[in-house]
Amino acid sequence: MEIELGPERMTLHWSPRSPFVRKVMIAAHELGLVDRLECRRTVVSMAAPNEALLPINPLSKIPTLVLADGTMLYDSLVICEYLDDLAGGGRIVPRAGRERWLELSGHALANGLLDTLILYRNEREKPEAARTQAWLTAFQVKLDAALAQFERDIDAISARPFGVAQIALGVTLSYLDFRFQPFDWRGDHPRLAAWHAKFSARPSAAATEPVDDL
Amino acid sequence: MEIELGPERMTLHWSPRSPFVRKVMIAAHELGLVDRLECRRTVVSMAAPNEALLPINPLSKIPTLVLADGTMLYDSLVICEYLDDLAGGGRIVPRAGRERWLELSGHALANGLLDTLILYRNEREKPEAARTQAWLTAFQVKLDAALAQFERDIDAISARPFGVAQIALGVTLSYLDFRFQPFDWRGDHPRLAAWHAKFSARPSAAATEPVDDL
Repeated sequence: MEIELGPERMTLHWSPRSPFVRKVMIAAHELGLVDRLECRRTVVSMAAPNEALLPINPLSKIPTLVLADGTMLYDSLVICEYLDDLAGGGRIVPRAGRERWLELSGHALANGLLDTLILYRNEREKPEAARTQAWLTAFQVKLDAALAQFERDIDAISARPFGVAQIALGVTLSYLDFRFQPFDWRGDHPRLAAWHAKFSARPSAAATEPVDDL
Repeated sequence: MEIELGPERMTLHWSPRSPFVRKVMIAAHELGLVDRLECRRTVVSMAAPNEALLPINPLSKIPTLVLADGTMLYDSLVICEYLDDLAGGGRIVPRAGRERWLELSGHALANGLLDTLILYRNEREKPEAARTQAWLTAFQVKLDAALAQFERDIDAISARPFGVAQIALGVTLSYLDFRFQPFDWRGDHPRLAAWHAKFSARPSAAATEPVDDL
């Protein structure tokens, strides 16, 4: 018996290690759309563009979503908002007004921190002679400043409906646990730590914990 | 006589060299909102976080927009969409439907290329012993692949109303001229070059050409 995928089945270029992919997967779980995604394991790295992915996304980045009609969608936020729209709209990205700008700006800050952490890790993993110490120092200054701001603002952030800002923040803090051990971000940020524990207990987050052995 | 700024005057952390700031300025020109922006020269770099900016944006990135009520908005796309909304909405970011996803995805690709070019330049400017050759190679592969895709798709891109996708593409190509001389991106991409000439002739683009001497 042939399985009917239907016109609405989409291919997601995916990895269990990518925090940007995880944002999309958490969104899909929250919106009840996981079954619509065909996840295809796709390996990318700074040093080695994925030749099979280049014709689909010339920057060789994931997540990349391929719609049933062949349309390619990048990047993770665009895919999250697209999924939100499929699910009726306004659920993880407010449609309009002040709530929308706070949500998108909150997302941009957490996502920008995640971008910074990726660069930080890439730089730390270089041979010592190739590391640029001023960058490493700057990355840590930004990380500390961002954590302090999130600790200050977490009550206001978590008072808003769960959406892309909290998804990006949760994923970013989990990435610290995944790739920055033994850095103890919880010690000086107890309210952020308490919020992250609640985030991690959500079914959408629990189902998408990063793993390194795939 | 005191000048009334009114509640709607906004402060934009700005630089004449930043292509991400230029996106916002082109948007403001297109939308007739330049006079609402108080541009404040703000210097940032990978190696040196701007101490004065950190309390406003802990990642020390520009553009950052501070609204009259003190709300901070990041990043460049969020600011562009916010300005679009102030101007009535739907002018440089389609409100809904397939046109919206094509526009945002097109923006993400051009903007992602710009992110890549910033990293590429940072890596090239390091002392030779500190450069990671595999990264430089990978950046060039991505640049070539992206330019080829834009050359293929430029008729479809430019057939849509002028919005954030074309703004990001134009700014990114201009950045190649600004920071990647003598790399000749026009040679193999004649249609893209012709489109960029038209882009550069728009008053919004002409008024915001990057300059290095401020």
